[in-house]
Amino acid sequence: MQSITPPATRLFTFVGGATGPWRVEHIHCIAGEPMTAASRLVVIPGTGAQPPQGSSWILRGITSNERYVVREEKSALVSKQEGLGRPDSKRAALIPIRKKAVWWALAQDERREIFEAQSRHIGIGMQYLPAIARRLHHCRDLGHEEPFDFLTWFEYASSDSAAFDELVKVLRASPEWEYVDREIDIRLVQEEV
Amino acid sequence: MQSITPPATRLFTFVGGATGPWRVEHIHCIAGEPMTAASRLVVIPGTGAQPPQGSSWILRGITSNERYVVREEKSALVSKQEGLGRPDSKRAALIPIRKKAVWWALAQDERREIFEAQSRHIGIGMQYLPAIARRLHHCRDLGHEEPFDFLTWFEYASSDSAAFDELVKVLRASPEWEYVDREIDIRLVQEEV
Repeated sequence: MQSITPPATRLFTFVGGATGPWRVEHIHCIAGEPMTAASRLVVIPGTGAQPPQGSSWILRGITSNERYVVREEKSALVSKQEGLGRPDSKRAALIPIRKKAVWWALAQDERREIFEAQSRHIGIGMQYLPAIARRLHHCRDLGHEEPFDFLTWFEYASSDSAAFDELVKVLRASPEWEYVDREIDIRLVQEEV
Repeated sequence: MQSITPPATRLFTFVGGATGPWRVEHIHCIAGEPMTAASRLVVIPGTGAQPPQGSSWILRGITSNERYVVREEKSALVSKQEGLGRPDSKRAALIPIRKKAVWWALAQDERREIFEAQSRHIGIGMQYLPAIARRLHHCRDLGHEEPFDFLTWFEYASSDSAAFDELVKVLRASPEWEYVDREIDIRLVQEEV
């Protein structure tokens, strides 16, 4: 959730390759074109930093204002959620998603209807708070050649891995997911080399 | 209005300087920091092109999905609006705007409430269709150091200049404009050198 005082940067770079504090457990292609393998991942705030040598891929995203969340939901989320970087959050997931052109051509009320009234995207995520912490990064408006529309980063304790599996399973079965045309599921374990 | 078939590019670069098909009539600073002078302007699709020599400033924006327009409004807009580049559209305006951080921290329903229920932003614009054609470009999520959040480009016939003045006057008097912290009004006349 974005506060009124902006953070140092809204841009984040995710680098998959041979180095980084996160060990890649697996990279599963859920829909569309797969991504190349990587054994480690590092998240770099901003875009100025030089990506480490031996990088397999680089994804960029920017945090932004909410597009669907209404006041009541925002207040409930803020009161329940916890931040990234908790000492117990030894597991993470990076889920890049692209939605079909037909999704983006819908009007705002049509997208909100599918997102929440039909799919309960916010309500389902709320059930897993504060265990599953999350930061959404937008890519679609960074440029017109970005490979994904969103990168969502999740952090949770090892004991919540099954809960996370359940969360993504429920969302993927929702009507909103009929509009997803590419999705990669990257699971990570925090493990300093 | 975005169609399902995407255009060749969603990115546009606006270059103020000494060259270009649009002669700058004036650059008025409505709010916040002013912009430097320029005598001509060119609009370049994409970002790959080299800006002409002697450029004073370069602004970039990307067209995107609607953030507030609901289905009924979208259908009404589509049926009433005309495209850019009409032979009679010898006048244009480029209006870069930045909104306050407090705007971006609002929930979606709060922004929509101010935007349309209180300010009638869509309804007012509709009254000036098809005379005033318009393309909205987003900048806020291009990066975290963009000088503006939006660039709106308007085109109209010389005989509709007074109507355009009225349109911006009405919008600037609306509650939405209390959230604007920088606005520049650049008026242009199509005039090949």
